[in-house]
Amino acid sequence: MKVIKDIREMQSISNALKKEGKIIGFVPTMGFLHKGHISLITESKKKSDVTVVSIYVNPTQFSPSEDFEKYPRDFKSDENLCINAGVDIVFYPNGDYMYSDEHKTFVITEELSTKLCGISRPEHFRGVTTIVAKLFNIVNPNIAVFGQKDAQQSIIIKKMVEDLNFDIDIIIVPIVREVDGLALSSRNKYLSEKHRKDAPTIYSALTKAKDLIKEGEKQSRNILDFINKTLLSVPDLKIDYVSIVNMQNFEKVETIGTNTLIAVAVYFDSTRLIDNILIN
Amino acid sequence: MKVIKDIREMQSISNALKKEGKIIGFVPTMGFLHKGHISLITESKKKSDVTVVSIYVNPTQFSPSEDFEKYPRDFKSDENLCINAGVDIVFYPNGDYMYSDEHKTFVITEELSTKLCGISRPEHFRGVTTIVAKLFNIVNPNIAVFGQKDAQQSIIIKKMVEDLNFDIDIIIVPIVREVDGLALSSRNKYLSEKHRKDAPTIYSALTKAKDLIKEGEKQSRNILDFINKTLLSVPDLKIDYVSIVNMQNFEKVETIGTNTLIAVAVYFDSTRLIDNILIN
Repeated sequence: MKVIKDIREMQSISNALKKEGKIIGFVPTMGFLHKGHISLITESKKKSDVTVVSIYVNPTQFSPSEDFEKYPRDFKSDENLCINAGVDIVFYPNGDYMYSDEHKTFVITEELSTKLCGISRPEHFRGVTTIVAKLFNIVNPNIAVFGQKDAQQSIIIKKMVEDLNFDIDIIIVPIVREVDGLALSSRNKYLSEKHRKDAPTIYSALTKAKDLIKEGEKQSRNILDFINKTLLSVPDLKIDYVSIVNMQNFEKVETIGTNTLIAVAVYFDSTRLIDNILIN
Repeated sequence: MKVIKDIREMQSISNALKKEGKIIGFVPTMGFLHKGHISLITESKKKSDVTVVSIYVNPTQFSPSEDFEKYPRDFKSDENLCINAGVDIVFYPNGDYMYSDEHKTFVITEELSTKLCGISRPEHFRGVTTIVAKLFNIVNPNIAVFGQKDAQQSIIIKKMVEDLNFDIDIIIVPIVREVDGLALSSRNKYLSEKHRKDAPTIYSALTKAKDLIKEGEKQSRNILDFINKTLLSVPDLKIDYVSIVNMQNFEKVETIGTNTLIAVAVYFDSTRLIDNILIN
């Protein structure tokens, strides 16, 4: 496995691979890899000849009050996980090198980026689309793999790719969960033992909501009431949002039909966790 | 010469050319081609194996009050000019097809896009960077050629390419002028005979200003006074702006040094003309 730190070198490796007719699969990450990431890598390996994983904690998607500085980093462990997962190339750029001091260009997706997580994180998705556009231009992949856990991010990236005509297939991979149902996240390590024990309630509220819908409840209001009540029964849990929306445009829906996304964001102290479930 | 109208077809032709190791040169235009465009094509042909010209009047860079509908179009003439100039491929997409009804993604360059022409055309450069990003992803060129006439546009595109890591060399080609000095522009055809006769004063004001600077005048204020006075002596001419700025960030400069851009935008009735000169 190669570790590439230089942008130009990554570009010239990708160009050479493309000339050889190789299909490049790409998994952009912020590192601190877990089984969720490995599932993305596995999917990329299935669908491509060469898998590139980028590891870069992107400052522009964190607000000043967020956890950029203390976001967990462990390159040695990430490197080993990548080797074991059969990654071909890790792109691991020097932080200072990705954005110049004079950086002025941003990719924005109007409307989609201001809803759900965009309400409490107004600059977040602009940072995401900008770094992903940059990485796409550096890695030049044929396919790129994202996780359903960041449902809003996945849909925004798909929209960006469609709107800006990136010649890249976007693949979304299902959420990987702990045995008790908690969605895997690099941020789970911030949780206290007590909070870690309580956190699976997020997913159980979602699955029970899905059961209620299957049993015939179609009113978003009632489902929202149920989820909110379940979550508020958890000590220390603060709700950021619980939303039932159309999967394409994130507009709230009153009656639950197909293509509905139920998305949740909560805090335990300053640790923000998200989860979601699709109703098809 | 091939004329390609389909986005996917253009992408697959470019991919095939890249696999063969061909250097793709790209000249994005809004059509109604003149000698200014031909100079861009000539430059592209010098530096690449295959030259692609796009012809597309991009709606997102016009404000509702501007001349999108009546912007001049003549594909047959453009096609002949391209054949004669030795263009290999014209990318001529169907208008309705470039932006979906649900288009939401824009590329923005902060600060640079709000100065000079950005003051009277606040959405203009957002439209330019968005369509150029789209075309870059469709044509996938190694080099792209722009004209110095749209000085602000050229610098913004260079900034976008640098900030978003497009693997493309941007080449800026000098302004091509009529014998009497008027910068070539598709919009010159809007001018009445009288206004056409008066329009070269724009360039003569700029060249005389440059002479004054060479002779020792370094105060922007005095040079601006001179240009404004010269332009205001032209009947029917309305000044949009006359600015002396740093070429990199478009900040106004008080004392003229190297890397200074003198940029002018004026109206004859509703016809907007721009010109500029560099002081090095």
